[in-house]
Amino acid sequence: MKQTKAWKRLSEDLTMVEDYIEGSICTLEPLVTNSSLQLLQAGGKRIRPAFALLSARLFTDDISGLMPLAAALEMIHMASLTHDDIIDNSMVRRGKATINAMQGSSVALHIGDFLTGQAMQLVDSYEDVRISLAISSTIEEMCLGELYQLKQAHNLDQGFKEYLYRIQRKTALLMAVSCQTGGLAAGAGDVQANTVRRFGYCLGIAFQIIDDVLDMVADKKMLGKPVGGDLKEGNITLPVLYALANCNENEEKLRAMLLERDKNPEVIKEIISIVKKSGGLDYALNLASRYTEKAKNHLICLPDKPEREFLMQISDWMVKRSY
Amino acid sequence: MKQTKAWKRLSEDLTMVEDYIEGSICTLEPLVTNSSLQLLQAGGKRIRPAFALLSARLFTDDISGLMPLAAALEMIHMASLTHDDIIDNSMVRRGKATINAMQGSSVALHIGDFLTGQAMQLVDSYEDVRISLAISSTIEEMCLGELYQLKQAHNLDQGFKEYLYRIQRKTALLMAVSCQTGGLAAGAGDVQANTVRRFGYCLGIAFQIIDDVLDMVADKKMLGKPVGGDLKEGNITLPVLYALANCNENEEKLRAMLLERDKNPEVIKEIISIVKKSGGLDYALNLASRYTEKAKNHLICLPDKPEREFLMQISDWMVKRSY
Repeated sequence: MKQTKAWKRLSEDLTMVEDYIEGSICTLEPLVTNSSLQLLQAGGKRIRPAFALLSARLFTDDISGLMPLAAALEMIHMASLTHDDIIDNSMVRRGKATINAMQGSSVALHIGDFLTGQAMQLVDSYEDVRISLAISSTIEEMCLGELYQLKQAHNLDQGFKEYLYRIQRKTALLMAVSCQTGGLAAGAGDVQANTVRRFGYCLGIAFQIIDDVLDMVADKKMLGKPVGGDLKEGNITLPVLYALANCNENEEKLRAMLLERDKNPEVIKEIISIVKKSGGLDYALNLASRYTEKAKNHLICLPDKPEREFLMQISDWMVKRSY
Repeated sequence: MKQTKAWKRLSEDLTMVEDYIEGSICTLEPLVTNSSLQLLQAGGKRIRPAFALLSARLFTDDISGLMPLAAALEMIHMASLTHDDIIDNSMVRRGKATINAMQGSSVALHIGDFLTGQAMQLVDSYEDVRISLAISSTIEEMCLGELYQLKQAHNLDQGFKEYLYRIQRKTALLMAVSCQTGGLAAGAGDVQANTVRRFGYCLGIAFQIIDDVLDMVADKKMLGKPVGGDLKEGNITLPVLYALANCNENEEKLRAMLLERDKNPEVIKEIISIVKKSGGLDYALNLASRYTEKAKNHLICLPDKPEREFLMQISDWMVKRSY
């Protein structure tokens, strides 16, 4: 299967997922329908449904039964973003105004809860406790990660272990469970589903490390949100942790700037410059590449279908992306 | 079974439920464990687990398998209160400081999500799609109700239908599903589970109407939160709707006071006085009694166990309660 053909098929599948989500969020209450639609139409890479569908295609040619699951995974992600936007008081995401900005935090809070409830119903419809439990436990772990991130905000004395714990819960577990449940819903056995889960996990770690790098170097327009958001919120990411340990004479200055509560654009720029000079960004990119290689190694044990090759290509693309 | 014996057994069962919740919310993260424990220990009537357990006892003598479900139902309720407290910016509930007050709204938001995720895992462990789907769809409906309440706040031109829609979602559906899933987990057939569900639904409607009356007349200390909370938040409840339609010459004055955004204690007192004079409280109490009778009529079709009589007594107590 040529790459362009594979992309085309995935893109068609994802359009079906979006249609399915649109159907699921349609309620009699216009406030709910419109806010949820606005969130859906703001876009996004649809990575979680994409990985669920591609994982499924390793085990079946007919993915029509995958739509509720793929939709649910994206809705869980949408719910988590909506609640994040309340906490960070974010007004813009993916270049568009957030529900928080347009409808206020109360509506945003309930829309997040509504999406989770809807998603769990779609998941339960598989009548497969392995799928339901994998997803409900992931939702719980994601919340624990968010709470841990709140607790560790502005803490400059945390280690790589704490960073890893956070990004596991922030990103890797939902990507892992997307691959695993995509496999299970397509008839994979537990062993194969666990292998594809491990692929998703490693790629999820790589993906979040790249995201944290992009928060420092991406083009604001491409990123869809302001650069330096993590620094402003006191979210200490891998490049910063590396810089703190390796920037030598700049350490005191870096610490002082990181601890400033309302960092102006000049301070943000200066922090990023010190992190760059320390080699923090290169270190993070290198670690992301290593996780991507690990992810690809798991793929080798899975059925030799065209989608396996495509997942390899997507993995490589994900570490090289600029948004 | 004498009433005192029945109360004693229920009280012992509920202590087991509380222990089970305590075990479920214990995590490696002290912030999560402590906040959740604080919420649990603030108390509450544990009505949802109580109804699940009593419904289960109509169909089985061994309720040891009911603990995960009973715990989950209370955790869903706790999650919903935690999110409500963020929206209302409530600092006190059940006479104790809220998570919102002590840890801030960000922690409260994630603790609510965490409790829902944990609850869904407990529910999924039954491997019974009827139970999982009944509960996940209730979570969704509860959110729709909250959103509807936000939309209808300060709207004096809504009807009884809108009020009923809100209290169904705010209270009745979770009580209905507590009874239904309690029955299902205890081996009841679908027909019987639906009958006990209808009992829970009618009693839930009665319970919320009484709650709305108590918000106007209860003793602050007994209620555990300030009186007149609904009036302050612009939540138009049944006694007020009745008063608006029946207070004759006071209507314009009542409307004007209800529309005031920051009502001082004198205004609250005056509104309550007009509502009382209009007969709004009596009307609401009467409707609650009628729903309680309807609830009890459903019980008659269920197995003639001592718990059936006890559920009758509790129903009567619930409409007569003062907190």
